[in-house]
Amino acid sequence: MKKAVIICSGGCDSVTLLHWAKKQYDEIEALTFDYGSKHNKREQEFAKYQCDLLGIKHQIINLDFNSWGFKSNLLQNDLPIPEGHYAADNMKQTVVPYRNGIMLSIATGYADSIGAEAVFLGSHRGDRAQYPDCTTEFTQAQSLATQLGTSSHIKVISPFNDLMKWDILKIGLKLGIDYSKTWSCYVGKERPCLKCGTCVERTESFYRNGSKDTLLTYKEWDDAVDYMKSVVTDLPKV
Amino acid sequence: MKKAVIICSGGCDSVTLLHWAKKQYDEIEALTFDYGSKHNKREQEFAKYQCDLLGIKHQIINLDFNSWGFKSNLLQNDLPIPEGHYAADNMKQTVVPYRNGIMLSIATGYADSIGAEAVFLGSHRGDRAQYPDCTTEFTQAQSLATQLGTSSHIKVISPFNDLMKWDILKIGLKLGIDYSKTWSCYVGKERPCLKCGTCVERTESFYRNGSKDTLLTYKEWDDAVDYMKSVVTDLPKV
Repeated sequence: MKKAVIICSGGCDSVTLLHWAKKQYDEIEALTFDYGSKHNKREQEFAKYQCDLLGIKHQIINLDFNSWGFKSNLLQNDLPIPEGHYAADNMKQTVVPYRNGIMLSIATGYADSIGAEAVFLGSHRGDRAQYPDCTTEFTQAQSLATQLGTSSHIKVISPFNDLMKWDILKIGLKLGIDYSKTWSCYVGKERPCLKCGTCVERTESFYRNGSKDTLLTYKEWDDAVDYMKSVVTDLPKV
Repeated sequence: MKKAVIICSGGCDSVTLLHWAKKQYDEIEALTFDYGSKHNKREQEFAKYQCDLLGIKHQIINLDFNSWGFKSNLLQNDLPIPEGHYAADNMKQTVVPYRNGIMLSIATGYADSIGAEAVFLGSHRGDRAQYPDCTTEFTQAQSLATQLGTSSHIKVISPFNDLMKWDILKIGLKLGIDYSKTWSCYVGKERPCLKCGTCVERTESFYRNGSKDTLLTYKEWDDAVDYMKSVVTDLPKV
């Protein structure tokens, strides 16, 4: 029986990965990491919702990055989340040091414990500019480490590593995923801020697919598109 | 300024590493991982003692492997710690899946946060037989992953990877380390059991250096040597 562990934050990419991998494997388990980021709680609810929907066992792993002394504007503190384009230089402030390495390692230990053969991660091409632990080179090296470091030779698989976020959304929209039950905004308020890098990237991705983001009201969607167009300069003509 | 993070359990090997690395780096910080093993608490006291002695900042990182569903006889549960030689097949029961990968990844995130350039691990050649995440191949792959996955290109260094435990002890005895303030036994009782794989390996290592283990009473040392000689068949003539 083919069994895999998926790291699912509750964002668009990892929820798409969850639905996609569910079709490839006999059994899937999902892990959501709560590492003390500002937006963790909102995402978590949706990760649980999507797992329940698919009948996937879901577990939250708590990691206290804040008290351990990890530094990032994404963690719960008074430091601001920058607005604007994801690839802009100030988005580097949101890097959580080696976050994917840590999540993948714990997921690997868990996978070994339950007899799974692989760990899936939903990182994508758009993440590369800022996050060194989202690159193809990193996930390949990590996969080598997990294969050598476990008796069951567990692999790391990140099938979206060469796709842009809008390509992933295209797959998910075809699969009929309800994206109103996903969360991306980094700010961690009741509603998405529409202006942080991850909000802008999400809006751009729905826009490029000719779809409205169903998480947003019509008013929010219009505001989100207006702001996105003010910072994304290479939109294709539609 | 050269700064490094050391993973220190409070056992002989990582305590030797701590004293050795203290001479090579301007600043050292130490992390002790409490992942819910039977023997963690005894080791931790000694890790803290050795760090205090050297003026090294020390932090305990709690990871709840038990409630996360990790499987190993080393964790707090009713499963027994096997007796006998470290290389014996039943010692595989004490493998904690991908433990070193997890500890190294968290230490890497922390190193990046404090501006350290490397993470040190005290794994050695005797661990190889049972623990895939103690091999040179693993630590090299892990180092590639951490260099690619962090903006500061943090390295993993395991300088004892090709040494046997007695070679490490030889270094530490020369450095004048007080090994009565280290702990190895896996069983987690008030005194070392003298019969688990790690007790046997520790006894063999002192014995091969012509030293008594100062953690033990004379009576315990004699018993430990007797038991060790009954399971270690390739001792050199002394």
